[in-house]
Amino acid sequence: MTAEIIDGKAFAETVKARVGRQVEALKKNHDFTPGLAVVLVGEDPASQVYVRNKNKSTVAAGMKSEEIRLADTVSEEEVLAVVHRLNDDPTIHGILVQLPLPKQVDEMAVLDAINPEKDVDGFHVINTGRQAVGLPAMVPCTPLGCIMMLKDRLGDLSGLNAVVVGRSNIVGKPMASLLLAENCTVTIAHSRTKDLPAVVRGADIVVAAVGRPEMVRGDWIKPGATVIDVGINRIEGENGKTRLVGDVAFDEAKAVAGAITPVPGGVGPMTIACLLANTVTAACRQAGLEEPQV
Amino acid sequence: MTAEIIDGKAFAETVKARVGRQVEALKKNHDFTPGLAVVLVGEDPASQVYVRNKNKSTVAAGMKSEEIRLADTVSEEEVLAVVHRLNDDPTIHGILVQLPLPKQVDEMAVLDAINPEKDVDGFHVINTGRQAVGLPAMVPCTPLGCIMMLKDRLGDLSGLNAVVVGRSNIVGKPMASLLLAENCTVTIAHSRTKDLPAVVRGADIVVAAVGRPEMVRGDWIKPGATVIDVGINRIEGENGKTRLVGDVAFDEAKAVAGAITPVPGGVGPMTIACLLANTVTAACRQAGLEEPQV
Repeated sequence: MTAEIIDGKAFAETVKARVGRQVEALKKNHDFTPGLAVVLVGEDPASQVYVRNKNKSTVAAGMKSEEIRLADTVSEEEVLAVVHRLNDDPTIHGILVQLPLPKQVDEMAVLDAINPEKDVDGFHVINTGRQAVGLPAMVPCTPLGCIMMLKDRLGDLSGLNAVVVGRSNIVGKPMASLLLAENCTVTIAHSRTKDLPAVVRGADIVVAAVGRPEMVRGDWIKPGATVIDVGINRIEGENGKTRLVGDVAFDEAKAVAGAITPVPGGVGPMTIACLLANTVTAACRQAGLEEPQV
Repeated sequence: MTAEIIDGKAFAETVKARVGRQVEALKKNHDFTPGLAVVLVGEDPASQVYVRNKNKSTVAAGMKSEEIRLADTVSEEEVLAVVHRLNDDPTIHGILVQLPLPKQVDEMAVLDAINPEKDVDGFHVINTGRQAVGLPAMVPCTPLGCIMMLKDRLGDLSGLNAVVVGRSNIVGKPMASLLLAENCTVTIAHSRTKDLPAVVRGADIVVAAVGRPEMVRGDWIKPGATVIDVGINRIEGENGKTRLVGDVAFDEAKAVAGAITPVPGGVGPMTIACLLANTVTAACRQAGLEEPQV
């Protein structure tokens, strides 16, 4: 048996296209354009690439995109002033502050200052809390992308055993919360878990989000399981070149799983698509319009 | 093998006594008295008993206790006005609004209005979110009591398999979050879980919080496991009298488990003790004093 490869890139394109149609309808029917602001502090090349891609995708989806660049010598007060201005701007419905921030700026204070309704990254504690208790919330983009791929492939997730490996605030914990909301029986495993292979072997759904290259081996996977690999690890490849691998030993797992996301080209591309979807959701909630399907 | 019976009543008394000593020290060293306000709306007899017991225990621990009684015809605005007054009262460090509230009062709006720092019930979404991401938070009393009993019996919980049966916002979800913070491998099971007996059999720690009398059977329990029974169900007993039972079939489970909480006399008495402990924690945080050990 060879697993179906879940094409995150193609799926992300369908999500982006759907968001584009939703934005078009909002413009046509309500004369309303969702807007996303991205704040970038400093000159980190990777962050610059992310922000440029987010900007391009936002514009391509027909939304307003605002990019605010600040020098890495900026004070916390200046960053907070930008956030407050964006909170008050009625044409901006989503605010994303690209992390990391320079050390003189308290990340927690900045994230906390974002209006939770505009928090399209879903990192504000109010959104964490609202998600946990089942209230409408902004959900972090990466786990949202994972759940969309799972529902696309499996349909109803109810009663399935899901194991989340990793308990970060950005992926593992919100992922577990989303799977629970879909009526999975959810296990959160981590570095302290005893006999992790046995725990993973019980899973119909495995979400690996630990940041350890190829840690999850093929013989840990239950035959037919769906494997979502959130890890993106750069390792030494042949010829002295580096290459990207996930948290799952892909070739081994592919021989056992029912479906698996590759790295790259799996979860990664979904993140920006979900950011756009979150922006439309946030915009519709703020404008009192019906939320489109995510 | 017969399980050790975890005496929640005795343990709650030791917690209350410790809180009493902490309050005494706060008075002596800082001339500072923690205060708890309980708001009771209407004449529900069970709620009146709870509130009376909370009041008595608060006074017994040396704290200030304020009881606000409102008629069940009260408007939401009036309840909110009381909450706002208590938020602004520097002698009150904990606010508890006894649920349920009459139907003309939106419970969510009232809980939301409580200053999260004074939310000794731990139901505010900000506290839910802060607990989830590992920030200092006010934690709901019942799961806090359960974790205290588990740590008292087992010491370090790291690496143990914990299964929480039930996913309520008041018990199941915060319980899972607390067990995860103690480095357990945590599984949340519920009504949609397939083969619940098999899931429970994998657990070193079972927390049952579903509200279904004696649902968890003895042969679901791994020999030597620690069983915490949060359920309190009134069922028909012999002679036409009613009696209280938990969510676990006690006599069966007792023969297999390593330790088990009885119903009544297990988790129940811990709840008020934890409310007092939460009030001291909240008071010290608000006053900028060192938090005592919980």
